[in-house]
Amino acid sequence: MQRIAFIGLGAMGRPMARNLLRAGFEVRGFDLNPAALADLEAAGGTAAGSVREACTGADAIVLMVVNAAQAEAVLFAEGALEAAPAGAIVCLTATCPPKQVEAIAARVAAAGRRFVDCPVSGGVAGATTGSLTVMAAAPAEVFAAALPVLEAIGSRTLHVGDRPGQGATVKTVNQLLCGVHIVVAAEALSLAERIGVDTARMLEILTGTSAGSWMLQDRGPRMLQAEPEVKSAVDIFVKDLGIVLEAGRETKAALPLTALAFQLFNATSGRGDGAADDSQVIRAFRALNGAM
Amino acid sequence: MQRIAFIGLGAMGRPMARNLLRAGFEVRGFDLNPAALADLEAAGGTAAGSVREACTGADAIVLMVVNAAQAEAVLFAEGALEAAPAGAIVCLTATCPPKQVEAIAARVAAAGRRFVDCPVSGGVAGATTGSLTVMAAAPAEVFAAALPVLEAIGSRTLHVGDRPGQGATVKTVNQLLCGVHIVVAAEALSLAERIGVDTARMLEILTGTSAGSWMLQDRGPRMLQAEPEVKSAVDIFVKDLGIVLEAGRETKAALPLTALAFQLFNATSGRGDGAADDSQVIRAFRALNGAM
Repeated sequence: MQRIAFIGLGAMGRPMARNLLRAGFEVRGFDLNPAALADLEAAGGTAAGSVREACTGADAIVLMVVNAAQAEAVLFAEGALEAAPAGAIVCLTATCPPKQVEAIAARVAAAGRRFVDCPVSGGVAGATTGSLTVMAAAPAEVFAAALPVLEAIGSRTLHVGDRPGQGATVKTVNQLLCGVHIVVAAEALSLAERIGVDTARMLEILTGTSAGSWMLQDRGPRMLQAEPEVKSAVDIFVKDLGIVLEAGRETKAALPLTALAFQLFNATSGRGDGAADDSQVIRAFRALNGAM
Repeated sequence: MQRIAFIGLGAMGRPMARNLLRAGFEVRGFDLNPAALADLEAAGGTAAGSVREACTGADAIVLMVVNAAQAEAVLFAEGALEAAPAGAIVCLTATCPPKQVEAIAARVAAAGRRFVDCPVSGGVAGATTGSLTVMAAAPAEVFAAALPVLEAIGSRTLHVGDRPGQGATVKTVNQLLCGVHIVVAAEALSLAERIGVDTARMLEILTGTSAGSWMLQDRGPRMLQAEPEVKSAVDIFVKDLGIVLEAGRETKAALPLTALAFQLFNATSGRGDGAADDSQVIRAFRALNGAM
């Protein structure tokens, strides 16, 4: 496990590729954005001219693309799979619906390559510091073979199951909880503002009670700021809760709270705040209720 | 601060009165249920024949009644306030809408008695072990005077504000978060069951990520049991989210997630599971989606 093809050098992919280089891997990357390729070269990697070129001779292909459709295009239409040697491991780190991950995994296996379903959480901050949580599903021997790669990008590498799709499932359920927890924190704080209490003091109290959540503690303080630093954008949750809802549609499971949380992120994006910090979904409540 | 009148010896009130006795207070209690009065006497308290009798000569009146309407009836119609000496402190520990607490506090103050708005959280388990969280709002000197009483029933006594109504507000927002966190945990686990993963393993993973909440960790494992022990009933959240929604109506603030969570608790109660552990709101998802 030495040569890595890295496809998708966006906000997450760029620092992940840098951490692979730091860990001693040889990284050949591809992205449509020339600035991303220049950044990779500056960090000691090699810019490839195409997906096929990046994947030729690679021991592993890391796919940090936007969605399942892009992963399919890269693997099957743009030649990644053909170019990689037999036995190469495809690591799909993007957030995708579980059923689509299963389908991709089956096609990869049919072509004689190996597959790890390994979405990550921790955002750009986690990608930069190499402290992502990696939720990996693959047969034990494939997981073991891919582990050095996964440990270079994450500080918490969990083997969540043997079957591809299970990583995506854990990530899907993770995002369901995260997204709804952010929106309910916004609903709670907007009610508190409306009734009129010291919301900063209240936050401090509630994070220590049975009302606490990781998101309340992390996003709550930024909800009380007018223009907080953007740690993760509203549009990330428009995308991720969209994936959660797709998993619900595919399995015909009702997700009423998720559907509602999605609407509020979506409307926030629609009012022009898609690039704002996701804590600013609280603006949906302020818009609904009038300035508070 | 020596003689306490305790009104409302239900599942919460009984152990709270016992803890006051243990702390050395003289407790005279009243409840319509003779068994509750017998229990109080067995613990060393005095059973009163009426609200008025319990409150005569009391330094403090603790009201652990069902709702604001009962608190008003006890104080103003059944003579508690008249019977208590001038300067006696009314401690309202029940969960009530903030505006109604403000109104009650104003009438108590007009009658020359003092008032602490001090709802509690921690359930019957917390009441029994004296480890409730007490969210108290009152002017500093009133809070200080009531503190020995509050510390006898709780292990975490927070002075959340100077104005009655602010304790009720913090409790209201607390219950909003707790109720929605339980329902979203149920939604998340029901999706995971549907897709088909090891839900116990997934819970273990998610409680350690950004998806974590106090409720996910506490209620999640009981959601995976068919007939878990009842720690707190579904009907408690039907009542408490009803109070949250009332606070939203009073202040004309939209609470879409709370409204939806209420519907699912309410339907669970309607199907006959009102006395089941509140984790069993997951049955609403199973009912919606078919057995999983």
